[in-house]
Amino acid sequence: MTRADIESGPANIWRYRSLLPVPVDVASKPNMNPGWTKLVKAGNLGRALGLKNLYVKDDSGNPTHSFKDRVVAIAVEAARNFGFHTLSCSSTGNLAGAVTAAAARAGLEACVFIPANLEAAKIAMARVFGGKLIGIDGTYDEVNRFCSELIGDPLGDKWGFVNVNLRPYYAEGSKTLAYEIAEQLGWRLPEQIVIPIASGSQLTKIDKGFRELVQLGLVEDTPYKIFGAQAAGCSPVSTAYKAGHDVVQPVKPDTIAKSLAIGNPADGPYVLDIARRTGGAVEDVTDAEIVAAIKLLASTEGVFAETAGGVTVGVLKKLAESGRLDPEAETVVLNTGDGLKTLDAISDDAQPTAVIRPSLDAFRAAV
Amino acid sequence: MTRADIESGPANIWRYRSLLPVPVDVASKPNMNPGWTKLVKAGNLGRALGLKNLYVKDDSGNPTHSFKDRVVAIAVEAARNFGFHTLSCSSTGNLAGAVTAAAARAGLEACVFIPANLEAAKIAMARVFGGKLIGIDGTYDEVNRFCSELIGDPLGDKWGFVNVNLRPYYAEGSKTLAYEIAEQLGWRLPEQIVIPIASGSQLTKIDKGFRELVQLGLVEDTPYKIFGAQAAGCSPVSTAYKAGHDVVQPVKPDTIAKSLAIGNPADGPYVLDIARRTGGAVEDVTDAEIVAAIKLLASTEGVFAETAGGVTVGVLKKLAESGRLDPEAETVVLNTGDGLKTLDAISDDAQPTAVIRPSLDAFRAAV
Repeated sequence: MTRADIESGPANIWRYRSLLPVPVDVASKPNMNPGWTKLVKAGNLGRALGLKNLYVKDDSGNPTHSFKDRVVAIAVEAARNFGFHTLSCSSTGNLAGAVTAAAARAGLEACVFIPANLEAAKIAMARVFGGKLIGIDGTYDEVNRFCSELIGDPLGDKWGFVNVNLRPYYAEGSKTLAYEIAEQLGWRLPEQIVIPIASGSQLTKIDKGFRELVQLGLVEDTPYKIFGAQAAGCSPVSTAYKAGHDVVQPVKPDTIAKSLAIGNPADGPYVLDIARRTGGAVEDVTDAEIVAAIKLLASTEGVFAETAGGVTVGVLKKLAESGRLDPEAETVVLNTGDGLKTLDAISDDAQPTAVIRPSLDAFRAAV
Repeated sequence: MTRADIESGPANIWRYRSLLPVPVDVASKPNMNPGWTKLVKAGNLGRALGLKNLYVKDDSGNPTHSFKDRVVAIAVEAARNFGFHTLSCSSTGNLAGAVTAAAARAGLEACVFIPANLEAAKIAMARVFGGKLIGIDGTYDEVNRFCSELIGDPLGDKWGFVNVNLRPYYAEGSKTLAYEIAEQLGWRLPEQIVIPIASGSQLTKIDKGFRELVQLGLVEDTPYKIFGAQAAGCSPVSTAYKAGHDVVQPVKPDTIAKSLAIGNPADGPYVLDIARRTGGAVEDVTDAEIVAAIKLLASTEGVFAETAGGVTVGVLKKLAESGRLDPEAETVVLNTGDGLKTLDAISDDAQPTAVIRPSLDAFRAAV
């Protein structure tokens, strides 16, 4: 496993196939080929926040416009190998679209489960690919519990729930974010990274990905600090971090960052451990700060993030302003989703500056 | 200029920088780095349509999720060189978002003009990046005329309208679609290609791009047929094609494919010439066929196209069913935009299959 081996691979996550639980010929099968999304040098945002070496890892460039395409691609391979005929998941929205799209491409059936109160765009995207979409009257945590029940029932026989019974495969997909960031930085670990926390799995797997690269001799063993980001309306890990606790007390989510609205995050304790071990932190921001951060990122870098990206950029800002980030250090902030899926967050302000007749006089009067 | 030179370039349009009117160091300046989008082997859609070698060139993977990022990236370089301080355009929606995003990244002012009746997602995306967004009470053709007036007025001094006074630069960006398709096919021209027609510029530049590759010896000089696709509600070029005319009679658009709703397409006559010269055709599909085609593409390939993609896939289907395509030939259909921007087209059907309580009994009753 050398840098050159990887660099000669395809411009998607399969360039790292030998570090993933997938067959060697994975790239030849019909799948969504996610990944190799842009690492944007964010000079304008960096200047606004006083950070001299800032990058945005923009996963809105994935096929269904969220990082979930990465994890689903691994789960699809596992589903094929186990002989599952139906691909399923509990989802806060992005995952449902990623699963139904991947199932369509792979020729599998799909039946996915979401809280019924999701954003219209996420509902539409979870349905257009043709699978069954079941809305559950309840929170994501209730949807998740229901899926665990369904796996034990004959109804769910031969069903691969990507984030339940296929979770060990699925979760490995998040490591590709770490691999890509390091490779795109020129085979170097970032010094500081801000990652959103939903279940916490992504954050723990990025840490794992960095350590694997060190073990394989692909990058130098340089220190990095991992910062976790939550919405104040669903901040059980941030609350535990600030209180100095090792365990995470579940909460009932109430935030516009619905893709992060997991009140009982399975990997919460591991996140706490990683943030403390690496010298990072866990922080949270209010819904108003999320909206402001979406606009800040958009107007400085031309990247339109979903609310989860507002959470990470908002936390980045908060950490920078409170002196908890080294302004000289190479810093990466993740945008894991797409603003087009959470339009409500900004739609009050996202209206024309003016509506006029097509005349110069009308334009002069308007500006 | 060799294949190896290009292949060693970045995974964006700048791999072709020496074939574009841009400075040699273009990749080092802050810009959106669009392109190198996926060429999806569409086995499922091909089987549905009886086409054995079908690919979808999916430009929804661009930074603002339409092909417009390609053309704007070239125009931004020209704007810098001319010393323009404001980036502008007349737009049916996608271009406005591409321009305001690129201006934000490049540190230019933006003021863009759209018909006021556009889709909510396109309006939001044109505004979130922070420029001025002016809605015009009128059609795109009226918006376009207004912009031409504004260029002649002191108000528009030092303004670069990407598709008016910067058009010669802007239009060249569409050639990168041709370059990428040929390179992604293994340095080969496709035998058949279906391209949407708005102004017609994209189609003429793809033809130009193919011919340049032949002239440079980068691909063999093999025959290709170019098919143009319009919405029936705005089909001046298709109408002229079917009537055997050389000129295009303007129409007043009335279609859900708003990104193609240009009633007076500047490059219409060139499109007619290219379709006839290459042995292709120009065809159109109704709004109902557009919606059906969006769903067909989504459910077979996991690609969620905007209405313009419904137009190309709908025309592909119509051409295949009427025997006007060679089913054995290597065929490419373009998706130039993103379904998330035209949700209304499918939202009636894009609802949950069922909404239930989180219980197995409720699920059994629902399925």
